[in-house]
Amino acid sequence: MNNRGILTIVSGFSGVGKGTLINKLLMKYDNYALSVSATTRGMRPGEQEGKSYFFMSVEEFENKINNNELLEYAKYVDNYYGTPRKYVEEMLESGKDVLLEIEIQGARQVKKLMPEALTIFVMPPSAETLKQRLIGRNTESSDVIDERLKRATVEAQGIEEYDCILVNDDLDKSVEKLNDIIQASHNQSFRNINFIKKIREDVNVFSEGE
Amino acid sequence: MNNRGILTIVSGFSGVGKGTLINKLLMKYDNYALSVSATTRGMRPGEQEGKSYFFMSVEEFENKINNNELLEYAKYVDNYYGTPRKYVEEMLESGKDVLLEIEIQGARQVKKLMPEALTIFVMPPSAETLKQRLIGRNTESSDVIDERLKRATVEAQGIEEYDCILVNDDLDKSVEKLNDIIQASHNQSFRNINFIKKIREDVNVFSEGE
Repeated sequence: MNNRGILTIVSGFSGVGKGTLINKLLMKYDNYALSVSATTRGMRPGEQEGKSYFFMSVEEFENKINNNELLEYAKYVDNYYGTPRKYVEEMLESGKDVLLEIEIQGARQVKKLMPEALTIFVMPPSAETLKQRLIGRNTESSDVIDERLKRATVEAQGIEEYDCILVNDDLDKSVEKLNDIIQASHNQSFRNINFIKKIREDVNVFSEGE
Repeated sequence: MNNRGILTIVSGFSGVGKGTLINKLLMKYDNYALSVSATTRGMRPGEQEGKSYFFMSVEEFENKINNNELLEYAKYVDNYYGTPRKYVEEMLESGKDVLLEIEIQGARQVKKLMPEALTIFVMPPSAETLKQRLIGRNTESSDVIDERLKRATVEAQGIEEYDCILVNDDLDKSVEKLNDIIQASHNQSFRNINFIKKIREDVNVFSEGE
């Protein structure tokens, strides 16, 4: 079997618990690594270069764009954010399954460059659950809540483009399920072409040799 | 999430242990059912109608062919063997994951009628392991062994057409892995289109209603 890790893109509704799921998965199993983003925004207290982000100048970032060194990128409020390909490649080559939490626009960019990436969309058990989470403890203004609900409508587009969905009802069970989906994906034939070819060649040699 | 079972086609080299894997899986978990084949050969002592096979006349069988009531069929030594669609459909509807052990020609026929079927090819850890299993205890004539090795060469074609491979090195672990692959497949987006649509519609209603 192939030892290369799987790049797993995790998307989902805001407030659905993607970040918690990923953190729990990273704590529970040591075969995972988290993709580290690059950004042009300034470092904040407590952040670490190469752990929180790869911090860089606009010029450095734009060079990476031009040299196709990013799997995806976007600009928010004058700052660039993106996923450096090299770090992800190194982790995959070392056999780690790499987790990347991004939105659908980013997921589409990555899929173009790495069509073998596994894409998972995290869902609430029901829309009502999602609404309750977005409304929260009713301490937000109705404008903020309106904005969140509208955003959910946008996020709900394109779910079918993902390979799998994951319903986040029970956190511990969902962490297990996320692990199961990624580990089962290692058995996909297209990830094991070299192993398949090797077995076939060896079987042919035996058959001819007898 | 969708409650419909998954039709899982299991193929693989002769002697690789497909049958044992499937039997162990059926014994260990109660959410699986085994597809029952139809045949025109006579019933043998100890066999049961509807359990070992659905026994029928050539006329009945050919009617089923003409009425598209079989997911696949083939003729071996003057007898028909095939997979009645109705039984499989009933089990899937009841939520059971249905296991069907067939060769690649049959797998291709089923995939045409049920493209959502999950296909798994069982592999030996190495060609050498397979050879040792086929040679067995050296009690067979070299003609029989030659025939088995040639057959393996034919069986090695088309592995890439399968969704997944399963390396049968340790029986108990392989049973677990087979279960993991099938259960993880329930999370594939295309199997949960209705659930996805429902969440999307409900989210839209919330957003418009606020």
